[in-house]
Amino acid sequence: MSSTILVTGAGGFIGRALSRRLAASADRLILCDRALPTPPGGAVPIVGDIGDPGVLDRALAAQPDIVFHLASVPSGLSEREPGLSRAVNLDASLALLERLAAAGRPVRVVYASTIAVLGASFDGPVDDTLLPRPALTYGTHKLMVETALADWTRRGRVHGIALRLPGIVARPASDSGFGSAFWSDVFHAVKGGPDCLCPASPEAAGWLMSLGRCVDDFIAAAALEAGRLKGAVTLPALSVRLGDLVQAIAGQTGGRASAVRYLADPQIMRNFGSYPPLSTPAADALGLSHDGDLESLVARALADLRAAGA
Amino acid sequence: MSSTILVTGAGGFIGRALSRRLAASADRLILCDRALPTPPGGAVPIVGDIGDPGVLDRALAAQPDIVFHLASVPSGLSEREPGLSRAVNLDASLALLERLAAAGRPVRVVYASTIAVLGASFDGPVDDTLLPRPALTYGTHKLMVETALADWTRRGRVHGIALRLPGIVARPASDSGFGSAFWSDVFHAVKGGPDCLCPASPEAAGWLMSLGRCVDDFIAAAALEAGRLKGAVTLPALSVRLGDLVQAIAGQTGGRASAVRYLADPQIMRNFGSYPPLSTPAADALGLSHDGDLESLVARALADLRAAGA
Repeated sequence: MSSTILVTGAGGFIGRALSRRLAASADRLILCDRALPTPPGGAVPIVGDIGDPGVLDRALAAQPDIVFHLASVPSGLSEREPGLSRAVNLDASLALLERLAAAGRPVRVVYASTIAVLGASFDGPVDDTLLPRPALTYGTHKLMVETALADWTRRGRVHGIALRLPGIVARPASDSGFGSAFWSDVFHAVKGGPDCLCPASPEAAGWLMSLGRCVDDFIAAAALEAGRLKGAVTLPALSVRLGDLVQAIAGQTGGRASAVRYLADPQIMRNFGSYPPLSTPAADALGLSHDGDLESLVARALADLRAAGA
Repeated sequence: MSSTILVTGAGGFIGRALSRRLAASADRLILCDRALPTPPGGAVPIVGDIGDPGVLDRALAAQPDIVFHLASVPSGLSEREPGLSRAVNLDASLALLERLAAAGRPVRVVYASTIAVLGASFDGPVDDTLLPRPALTYGTHKLMVETALADWTRRGRVHGIALRLPGIVARPASDSGFGSAFWSDVFHAVKGGPDCLCPASPEAAGWLMSLGRCVDDFIAAAALEAGRLKGAVTLPALSVRLGDLVQAIAGQTGGRASAVRYLADPQIMRNFGSYPPLSTPAADALGLSHDGDLESLVARALADLRAAGA
């Protein structure tokens, strides 16, 4: 990918992996986040809050051709502090889009949205026709930004696509603020970390994707023909049962499934453990894809952990 | 309705009619708009922009129990000036909601949204399962506010409902800024005003409601049990063919159908003249309703014009 690329939220879980991948191919890679402990060689680090107009100026000074916008306040924290979510997840995102829309040429924008825009209690299988009904402020603000991005794209002022991310595994053991964190915590527990008490039952059903596959899909989305961008798409994801995930991790690592104990919290189960079967024809048609099967997902997620030194 | 009521956009087409109706029943009626030429007796006028924090302070000083939020920049102007639409249709609305959410008791909010949130090109009949895909910045910002209102309602901080208004007839001859204005202009032309050149064909199909019925639905929405509020509803509307509307107006007024000439503009036809059959089970279940038939709609719209002195 030969171009100038900006990644916001580049110090986060997905941002770090995406930045490492892009460092090999971008002509110029600009990374922005409030903390950037280990930026890849050659990248230009901009440490600050993207909601700060001065930081935004610096991030856009090199006139990026492609912006991966990942900066956000996670779901649990957004729910506790809706004002903070508004400032970062909504206002800073809208300000970024307005600056890009004023750039005079349509910048490619790949926006990290979330399945949380769809809501939490589903009557049956989910597909691209489902009306979004966010059940969290996090999903609310992400949906509002999707809507604004689609409008700037309709106006021809940016070429934008929003990717609704499923649960991405495995986050670092230290990651917090996500109600869905247990889907990652089980990796660390089974492969030898401290035991983990899941706020969900083995029957919890989630939509999962490995970190590596998620990065694949971000990069594929940035390369799509502009005419194929139609707003937001729900990314493909594997439907996984928590108990099956734990067994698969144990099988591949030789670890102990018994390192995971379960104490289901009804609200966590409702918001993060009750996902029905999923189909995503719009994303499939764009060539975006999930990990294929549970063993492949676990293998790739474990490889990602090793690559990240976790 | 015995309570303290705030109407924003009270000087506008719908705001004026709603204010007149509320003046008879509210204990205290606060009207806010940038211009309030003839507020009904007993109402407290607050002249200013609801996006101005000082004006918002004054509007909320009496701690309203019910807020009808109608203030907005119309669709044509919003499309030409998206920054103005953002300031008024989005930011001022979000600020109002946040102030109400902080009030410490859930205020009833009835928000004037629009069928423009649904988009413009429909593949077939429209019902409540249609995914909103706004084709204008006006509809984009209204959809974003619907989404925020639903979230504050979910949080229990307001009791909100968004009503997606169809074309409301008949706006004053002087009203501008709405691409859909021709649906009202034909009333004035046929009943004796200057001839009108419609940017649509007689085959143009719209979703219409009389002003009086629209006010009925606003007041009914304010009285719904809080537990029945589930976000946004598309209001019922009559599906009307423009040529049939002109004939019905001529029939009831003795005016000349030939006062309307037609020169269809493809973009206007696409955005405001291509509405398929509509069903609105969610609004129907709440007891909201349209005018019943075309003759009743025209009769009520003409009566509304007489009541407004037009």
